[in-house]
Amino acid sequence: LKLIVEYDGTDFRGFQSQGQGNRTVQSVLAEAIQPIIGQDHLTIHAAGRTDTGVHAVGQVISFATASQLPIERWAIALNSRLPRDVAVASAEEAPDDFHARFSARSRTYRYAIWTRRTRSALWDRYSLHVRHPLNLAEMREAARSLVGVHDFAAYKRAGGNPGPTTVRNLQRLSIHRLPSGLILVTVTANAFLRSMVRNIIGVLIEIGKGDLPPAAAQEILATRERIQNPCAPAAPHGLCLWRVEY
Amino acid sequence: LKLIVEYDGTDFRGFQSQGQGNRTVQSVLAEAIQPIIGQDHLTIHAAGRTDTGVHAVGQVISFATASQLPIERWAIALNSRLPRDVAVASAEEAPDDFHARFSARSRTYRYAIWTRRTRSALWDRYSLHVRHPLNLAEMREAARSLVGVHDFAAYKRAGGNPGPTTVRNLQRLSIHRLPSGLILVTVTANAFLRSMVRNIIGVLIEIGKGDLPPAAAQEILATRERIQNPCAPAAPHGLCLWRVEY
Repeated sequence: LKLIVEYDGTDFRGFQSQGQGNRTVQSVLAEAIQPIIGQDHLTIHAAGRTDTGVHAVGQVISFATASQLPIERWAIALNSRLPRDVAVASAEEAPDDFHARFSARSRTYRYAIWTRRTRSALWDRYSLHVRHPLNLAEMREAARSLVGVHDFAAYKRAGGNPGPTTVRNLQRLSIHRLPSGLILVTVTANAFLRSMVRNIIGVLIEIGKGDLPPAAAQEILATRERIQNPCAPAAPHGLCLWRVEY
Repeated sequence: LKLIVEYDGTDFRGFQSQGQGNRTVQSVLAEAIQPIIGQDHLTIHAAGRTDTGVHAVGQVISFATASQLPIERWAIALNSRLPRDVAVASAEEAPDDFHARFSARSRTYRYAIWTRRTRSALWDRYSLHVRHPLNLAEMREAARSLVGVHDFAAYKRAGGNPGPTTVRNLQRLSIHRLPSGLILVTVTANAFLRSMVRNIIGVLIEIGKGDLPPAAAQEILATRERIQNPCAPAAPHGLCLWRVEY
């Protein structure tokens, strides 16, 4: 089965279960799915293993089951068991070889930045509050220099194990300002290194504030070393997994 | 002073204080303002006395004070004292005769409707979930018949005391569908009767579902009696006070 899942990441320790006692999206989903599939062994795969506090409107998960529950009943059955901050948007049957993570061709994330001098009562959970006005022209110039196939080692998670390669294809990195003043950064790649989106946003914000020149994004990239990147990753609560393409 | 105030209405018993023990927006604002103005007697006026559960991004309040706090410090000082679900967007000095309620020329509200078959994990707090697809063309036809100066007694709160007149000037009633599928109804009037927006939305939803014909909105209006209106008011959590014009 292939499910599209939404969640408000505020009260989760990320997507992936890591031992006992942590409330993760995966563990909450497993608790809702297991009673439906009965004795079947459950392994949930996800397109994006989102960090603590990151939200999703288009997370995709897959798992195998022999359950006879009609496909059109799955979303309703799960939503009635899931807590309010997780919802299944849709469910469909997938080919036997479908794997939410390995079959994905690209992922799109959105990062929201609130730049009004005063904080927001409604967007606080879903956006980073930056009190400085941001120079979008310079952020866009920097963004253009990151698009393409590059070694993104300088934008990976500090100290993490990135796997066999740190080369990724960044297909889109665009920046829009909504009428409310909210700034949305949309970023698409074949796949992302751990914390890569938040590290890119962290650099773009420093550039938008004027603390780094637009050329810094490319210069940091060229070092291929996380330790050469002076910027902290942007906070997780501004980030949302938007869509996964197969 | 004139303040623009935002709040998430979920955990409030509406704007206006009504006796002890209820958490209202007014009481929370008063608690934050009183320490700043010291011994001054505080009376807060608001452009819209929103019901329990209704949100705001553009509520306007006014009060008199002799405080010497510089005007540019007010929003920051209040936001540091206010809980996370209330924020002051901006503060400015107003003329002596300014009154947030009586000086207002018009109010704009927005009502959000989520029509996907499955519920939303992110929009649940801020939109009404209607599982039926809605016919926007028929809703718009009905909306057009309500725009103008009319006696809206059939759309007032059942049992409430509406004041000296139930005639209001409905200046705008428009309906848009966002890319996410969320439907936004925007409604502007010189002023609203209590629960009038929610009663209008309640009728429009029945029309959108096909349970009432588009002509019903005008027929209900013509009865001038709330008891002739068969529709319940739409739930408060989809409603947001958007903007007030002076």
